[in-house]
Amino acid sequence: MALIECIPNVSEGRRADVVDRLADAIRSTPGIRLLDRSSDGSHNRSVFTMAGDKDAVARAVLALFERAVAEIDLRTHRGEHPRMGAVDVVPFVPIAGVTMAECVELAKTVGAQVAERFSVPVYLYEEASTNPLRKNLEDIRRGEFEGLATKMATDGWAPDFGPRAPHPTAGATVIGARMALIAYNINLATDRLDVAKKIAAAIRHSSGGFRYVKAAGFKLEDRGIVQVSMNLTNYEKTPIFRVFETVKREAERYGVAVLESEIVGLVPSAALNAAAEFYLQIAGFAPEQILEHKLRGDG
Amino acid sequence: MALIECIPNVSEGRRADVVDRLADAIRSTPGIRLLDRSSDGSHNRSVFTMAGDKDAVARAVLALFERAVAEIDLRTHRGEHPRMGAVDVVPFVPIAGVTMAECVELAKTVGAQVAERFSVPVYLYEEASTNPLRKNLEDIRRGEFEGLATKMATDGWAPDFGPRAPHPTAGATVIGARMALIAYNINLATDRLDVAKKIAAAIRHSSGGFRYVKAAGFKLEDRGIVQVSMNLTNYEKTPIFRVFETVKREAERYGVAVLESEIVGLVPSAALNAAAEFYLQIAGFAPEQILEHKLRGDG
Repeated sequence: MALIECIPNVSEGRRADVVDRLADAIRSTPGIRLLDRSSDGSHNRSVFTMAGDKDAVARAVLALFERAVAEIDLRTHRGEHPRMGAVDVVPFVPIAGVTMAECVELAKTVGAQVAERFSVPVYLYEEASTNPLRKNLEDIRRGEFEGLATKMATDGWAPDFGPRAPHPTAGATVIGARMALIAYNINLATDRLDVAKKIAAAIRHSSGGFRYVKAAGFKLEDRGIVQVSMNLTNYEKTPIFRVFETVKREAERYGVAVLESEIVGLVPSAALNAAAEFYLQIAGFAPEQILEHKLRGDG
Repeated sequence: MALIECIPNVSEGRRADVVDRLADAIRSTPGIRLLDRSSDGSHNRSVFTMAGDKDAVARAVLALFERAVAEIDLRTHRGEHPRMGAVDVVPFVPIAGVTMAECVELAKTVGAQVAERFSVPVYLYEEASTNPLRKNLEDIRRGEFEGLATKMATDGWAPDFGPRAPHPTAGATVIGARMALIAYNINLATDRLDVAKKIAAAIRHSSGGFRYVKAAGFKLEDRGIVQVSMNLTNYEKTPIFRVFETVKREAERYGVAVLESEIVGLVPSAALNAAAEFYLQIAGFAPEQILEHKLRGDG
């Protein structure tokens, strides 16, 4: 069965009754599981994590839009987090039995439907982007709701779907497809912050490291140790084990050992299995050999 | 959801129509998935692999007995494999969301029902065993169907459930609970069979190695290499990674490298995740962090 994760970010994090109704819109869609919801009052923003097959996530996103467009008015919305739409961002993430190309197609289909049904302009981002200048969310959202009318009139900022002007209350939406993120930290058996910072610089993309790694060095004051804190943005192309081994080797150069690592939040089982395959040197392994995959009918 | 694997071994591997009806009895039980079936003509024996929750596997086993007792007559059964019952052995294996203790309870419940409904005597084995002399299947089955009436009359051989005499056509059955087996091989970059044999001796239980490892050394003639071939009988207590690291270290002592390893057939995801946790030194990891577990509703 195709399994897609979808994590819409919505510009409402204070009115609990509204957030409840948004959650209900998702949850009451047949075939959808709402895995998580979290609201931040100072950001005035909520993040929903859902999963299902293509049709189910498409229906749930449209149901969410219907409620959000009715309930949220960006003209009066205030919050610390940058935003440009009532439903601000909608990423589709392939989990199992589905390709990135299919998630890109899904983003386009849903984007076209959102524009048509709600007259909300839609920009495609990340893997679904149709324009290299509009791949990063931050670039698309720069100027926020308040600057949107002016920005949309500028050369190159016609939306991918919908009218070339913001929806009066719901703004515009960014829809796309991306890989699952893994929040991964490695704790070092030292209190030397410079070591964590140097290792973070060595492995992160922005300073010459691995393409799909974002990293920073931090001190964990209460434990008297330091941490290399990372986001792995494509665990297939930059796998966990390669990052771990590189951090370990770089730490050795300073006489420092890896104390432990930690995965924050969710991780796709494929990312862990890849580590087992690497270290155990397993040849010719097929996901269908995993008993639980077979039981789910993936195999 | 509790997930139990059950692998009944039945004394019929030649009459395809009978084996089909036995498979249908399992498959038509609600909540059961028949994952695999294989029949061996010279053994005159079939092995079914099914999975489901406690109630479903219990119902499927009883449905299987109903058909097997009706169709199989051990008085005329011939085959190379030792056997004492129409349904010869029924192991229950905990896979997810269920403890070994619960599988032991299930073995006892099903054992009592089999004895009552079909008048077939039942011996409990492995983790469900009530007597250290009747823990191993081989010990219970020694003498086979032909010697069963005499053996059952002997001191200490009253069955755990049912009459103290074989069923006239269906014999007696062994029911119990055990851990999932993993068939695991490590191939060495050498053609020296003595190295594979020495390493197998070093790691297997019978000659002083790990408690839950059976191992032997073989030559893979066509590839010009040797293999340490293993059964891991309890992957929680003797995990794959510890066996792999030990084989690798022992091979080094002979100047030999590990070429690759291979998992034959199915493996529970917990066994692979344990390897990822070990090598990546992941601290405080919970199975609920695996996205697919959460989706299945285990978390």
